[in-house]
Amino acid sequence: MSTDVERAWAYLSRVAEPPCPELAALVADEGPVAAADKVRRGGVDEALKRKTEARRENNCAQADLDVLARMGGRLVTPCDDEWPWLSFVAFGNLARPQGYPPLVLWAVGPARMDEVADRAAAIVGTRAATAYGEHVTADLAAGLVMRDVAVVSGGAFGIDGAAHRAALAGDGLTVAVVAGGVDVPYPAGHAALLSRIRRDGLLLSEYPPGTRPTRSRFLTRNRLVAALSGATVVVEAGARSGAANTAGWAADLGRNVCAVPGPVTSGASVGCHRLLRDGGATLVTRAEEVVELVGRMGELAPVEERPTSPLDALTESERRVYDALPKRGARSADEVAFATGIPVYQVVGPLAMLEVAGLVVQDGGRWKLARRR
Amino acid sequence: MSTDVERAWAYLSRVAEPPCPELAALVADEGPVAAADKVRRGGVDEALKRKTEARRENNCAQADLDVLARMGGRLVTPCDDEWPWLSFVAFGNLARPQGYPPLVLWAVGPARMDEVADRAAAIVGTRAATAYGEHVTADLAAGLVMRDVAVVSGGAFGIDGAAHRAALAGDGLTVAVVAGGVDVPYPAGHAALLSRIRRDGLLLSEYPPGTRPTRSRFLTRNRLVAALSGATVVVEAGARSGAANTAGWAADLGRNVCAVPGPVTSGASVGCHRLLRDGGATLVTRAEEVVELVGRMGELAPVEERPTSPLDALTESERRVYDALPKRGARSADEVAFATGIPVYQVVGPLAMLEVAGLVVQDGGRWKLARRR
Repeated sequence: MSTDVERAWAYLSRVAEPPCPELAALVADEGPVAAADKVRRGGVDEALKRKTEARRENNCAQADLDVLARMGGRLVTPCDDEWPWLSFVAFGNLARPQGYPPLVLWAVGPARMDEVADRAAAIVGTRAATAYGEHVTADLAAGLVMRDVAVVSGGAFGIDGAAHRAALAGDGLTVAVVAGGVDVPYPAGHAALLSRIRRDGLLLSEYPPGTRPTRSRFLTRNRLVAALSGATVVVEAGARSGAANTAGWAADLGRNVCAVPGPVTSGASVGCHRLLRDGGATLVTRAEEVVELVGRMGELAPVEERPTSPLDALTESERRVYDALPKRGARSADEVAFATGIPVYQVVGPLAMLEVAGLVVQDGGRWKLARRR
Repeated sequence: MSTDVERAWAYLSRVAEPPCPELAALVADEGPVAAADKVRRGGVDEALKRKTEARRENNCAQADLDVLARMGGRLVTPCDDEWPWLSFVAFGNLARPQGYPPLVLWAVGPARMDEVADRAAAIVGTRAATAYGEHVTADLAAGLVMRDVAVVSGGAFGIDGAAHRAALAGDGLTVAVVAGGVDVPYPAGHAALLSRIRRDGLLLSEYPPGTRPTRSRFLTRNRLVAALSGATVVVEAGARSGAANTAGWAADLGRNVCAVPGPVTSGASVGCHRLLRDGGATLVTRAEEVVELVGRMGELAPVEERPTSPLDALTESERRVYDALPKRGARSADEVAFATGIPVYQVVGPLAMLEVAGLVVQDGGRWKLARRR
């Protein structure tokens, strides 16, 4: 990418608060350099003019790119190979504010965006996570990266942080999509975590360097977490929660929405239970069940084994005969017949089969239960 | 009911292991007295003969009725007013072993069967309940009886017992359907509980007095728990569980199947999560949600309140302006315009509205956040 083109993208990234469909349309028509030029000169239609007026005279594109370069990052645009087209195509069907793809993405980290998006799950949830929530998150994230699924989240305290950390601990790929500039560690307490993600995974933002995250930017950012992931898993969420917002984006984008249940006595699981009751979310309890949703066709979760018992194989009448024998002591075939309501000549066969199976023993014409191991 | 008729029903109740469709058909054709007579003499077709042969010479009908009378109970038959026809009508559509209504029911307790069945929910679950499961069960049962819903269960240890106990503690109606005779306290540790249920609620069995519960009788009994209840709620159930069997009956009978979620780390909730994932069960977290399913039309659970914030009422641009003010210090309208990307003349209106709402304060031409209570 030539310096001019890159500078134009960087300028456009800041000039309007994203997402800005009018700006995207202009860029699509004119290309980034001409579009930037028109915006800078105020030569655009009224709507776009209003949206760019406050910042059109800004002149920090090169400075922004320098910050990014110093962090070892790159500006990823729709012209780049790694632009995850497929992730964003579903935005085309949405009639929802903010329901647009990003114009560009500021990226730091070794992972390629399109490869990540090809096999990723978002794990999101409340900042006020419980020990249970963090434990389940860590289990899920570890299980996902073990199966080569990237873990996408928002870098926040609580569930997000637990997800990123477990993914990193499992030598897996993790992506943080943040609501401010990639150079703004937020929350400050996650500076070290975010810098590990930058080094080993991928840190993404649609906001230029220096941008401070705000509440509306968190909500706008959530659509990218959902879009980059085949499934969004909400682990814990209160009654009012940003995670439910991400889940809403996932549903609107046709992605899988999953929720982990928890104790109904826990306020931190209220949002999950609501998603499961009313939101059409799929209940998930382990990583395999998420892989089934984001993985390659036919990658089904193995059915959990149910405990089995030698009694499982018994026929109905063997079962009734077996059940009719007392815990202590023995019964004659006649007594078994009366207890079961099965005629005595039909009790003998089952008793013999049960003896062969080692479940009952005969003792002088009377029958008793064999001692179980 | 004349003594002869009652004795005939009692005889028929024991002569074949219930449910016995051939016997039910004979009784429907010939009435109980003639049917009992034919069975006793062996004058029935081969299939029924085989099923009654082991017990047809038994002669304890009067003794059974005496036991019942001493307990203050009654034998309820399809000829009685309180026979809950509606509960059993769905059995007509099932092609499933044991999928038949009971021939008669041995009943002890002041509650009328049809009135109970009109507004009842089953609460069932594992005997190996956790403290969480027992707590949730008690909450649910108390909430149900407070809303005049009877609590049906199986009298077992664990979830069943917690449900009965909480219903009794709330001065509510509770029904135990047991898998042995009404005079056989099982489990023995629940003798006192079962006797309280007999005194204040209803103890039911399709087995004559003295019958010992067996594993197959538990499974057969489960269909009656489901049939008598508008909804079956599974609170905790392991991977292999009788509660799932009851839920299966409820589903087959067109009743509502509900499950309470729990920690995914708890083996005692595995069965519930499986019902929610694969079994089409409705997730429930509180009694109101169950009442909604068994109650009168329109008896909807009140929506839980979500916490609200004065910020909820803000418009999109007020929100963005509010978010652009720093936690400490103040910003000019120009700075707010740049931070938000909103033109400065469109920033002034939202700032004024926010000031009116008491959310921001002006200080010498600069704006800052008002201190929140």
